[in-house]
Amino acid sequence: MKMTGVLTPVVTPFDDALKPDADRLVNQCRWMLSQDVGLAMFGTNSEANSLSTGERRMLLDAVVDAGLPAERMMPGTGLCNLPESIELTRHAVERGVGGVLMLPPFYYKGVSGDGLFDHFARVIEGVGDDRLRIYLYHIPPVAQVGLSLELIERLLDAYPGIIAGIKDSSGDWNNTQAMIERFGDRGFAVFAGSEDFLLQTMRAGGAGCISATANINPAAIARLARDWQAEGADHAQAKLSETRAIVQGFPMIPALKATVARHSGDEGWARVRPPLVALTAGQREQLGAKLDAVGFTMPGLKEAATA
Amino acid sequence: MKMTGVLTPVVTPFDDALKPDADRLVNQCRWMLSQDVGLAMFGTNSEANSLSTGERRMLLDAVVDAGLPAERMMPGTGLCNLPESIELTRHAVERGVGGVLMLPPFYYKGVSGDGLFDHFARVIEGVGDDRLRIYLYHIPPVAQVGLSLELIERLLDAYPGIIAGIKDSSGDWNNTQAMIERFGDRGFAVFAGSEDFLLQTMRAGGAGCISATANINPAAIARLARDWQAEGADHAQAKLSETRAIVQGFPMIPALKATVARHSGDEGWARVRPPLVALTAGQREQLGAKLDAVGFTMPGLKEAATA
Repeated sequence: MKMTGVLTPVVTPFDDALKPDADRLVNQCRWMLSQDVGLAMFGTNSEANSLSTGERRMLLDAVVDAGLPAERMMPGTGLCNLPESIELTRHAVERGVGGVLMLPPFYYKGVSGDGLFDHFARVIEGVGDDRLRIYLYHIPPVAQVGLSLELIERLLDAYPGIIAGIKDSSGDWNNTQAMIERFGDRGFAVFAGSEDFLLQTMRAGGAGCISATANINPAAIARLARDWQAEGADHAQAKLSETRAIVQGFPMIPALKATVARHSGDEGWARVRPPLVALTAGQREQLGAKLDAVGFTMPGLKEAATA
Repeated sequence: MKMTGVLTPVVTPFDDALKPDADRLVNQCRWMLSQDVGLAMFGTNSEANSLSTGERRMLLDAVVDAGLPAERMMPGTGLCNLPESIELTRHAVERGVGGVLMLPPFYYKGVSGDGLFDHFARVIEGVGDDRLRIYLYHIPPVAQVGLSLELIERLLDAYPGIIAGIKDSSGDWNNTQAMIERFGDRGFAVFAGSEDFLLQTMRAGGAGCISATANINPAAIARLARDWQAEGADHAQAKLSETRAIVQGFPMIPALKATVARHSGDEGWARVRPPLVALTAGQREQLGAKLDAVGFTMPGLKEAATA
């Protein structure tokens, strides 16, 4: 079963010792699902690369053990090194996830397509489980190591069924479109990396989007992914982009967490791990005022956060 | 006791299942020490970011347990996440190392000095051991996250004694010189990231160099670090740079390993982990011929490799 629609890299809550807080995360994930948004936990905007491998395992276990549907989960399991990428991916598959979102190894720069192919191939063969569904994660602005169309084709040829799709966070619509055109008819699910491209993606035959701002604006984004053929879709797209542009005026992860803190009434949500830095009080006030001005709300969050 | 002179990011051997090979590594480390080169294991050129945290611990244990002097070791212990950076650093300190070489967290780009300061501060406080000596690792071409002079000053002010020095792999001599001039009189040891800058570094009052090519040309590099004030130093520097330039005509890590394989007679040394790719037979032949043409040898390696 393909994953489609909207997913979000769920922001990761920390306690006052900066340890990840599984209870807060479970409540947040439950709320995301209630808004029809799937769980791409341990993405870039989840501060996943600020978590240890053990912490990722513990948090995934907590969310699955809480009874949330694993088939709606697409945890990030791609690290720079093979053994831990295999370990995390196998663990996720064993917990029944719908798929995993996999970064390429991102420390060495200028690496070859052959080397990247070999890395993914060894992860797949190391996991050795037919239930594995890999969504590749193309995010050159951050990882600085991208995934070419040639590499994707080679992986699809070698591992059809297992290579299930991609999140394209290049910010380059031409690239997203090329992926849909070239691989869409092979069942390859292309997710835009931002809801700014959601309507274009749906119209071109893509699968949906996996977006950071779906952490705070989930219902409206999920609605457009469902109703993209209805009248008013262009207007709905413009509204989504308006909200996103406000958040993008601030450092993204601290801004998302500050917004969750504000609307849940739980100040602890504002914490980030270094090297990130929380918004200042002034930034938080500005962000809140700008979102208020466009009528932004997070209905049901407060109740979910204190469930 | 400050670490000075020449160290190398010891290349990491893999067996035919691409698991790290502790026995080969111990022999190689013993040979490096016999050439008067210290052990900056788990550096960029050690493929450290292709190793799991558990593999790094296992390999450090193997080298220390083999009786090699821990005070000559400066393992890389800086990862993107705090818990594992603290774990690896604490383990290294407990094994008695002379220092650790610490990358900044390198996934998120464009992070602030405040966030990086907080990261290093939390590692230091998390380790909580007065024996800790941190050598910062500035390698913007790869990590894409650098360490400014302002950040170094702030760390030195907050943690004098613990912040012990830096490896500058910026490739920018002006930056190396600025670090020596600004922090040298505070006991801050500045290592050039390549022997190309060794003589300049010694003349300016720096500590030495930590260089990938010291894996294959250790004795000559160590000799210049000792005899930099002797006649003929400029000629010796030119010879070192000539050899390095040959190796730099090929992908560095595969070229180092191919050279160790050739001169040790142990073909297994040529293996790399993806995303890196071993040299082709043609590249290996070219590299070997070019090094032969300048009279390059690795005396004693074959005996050490089969010890």
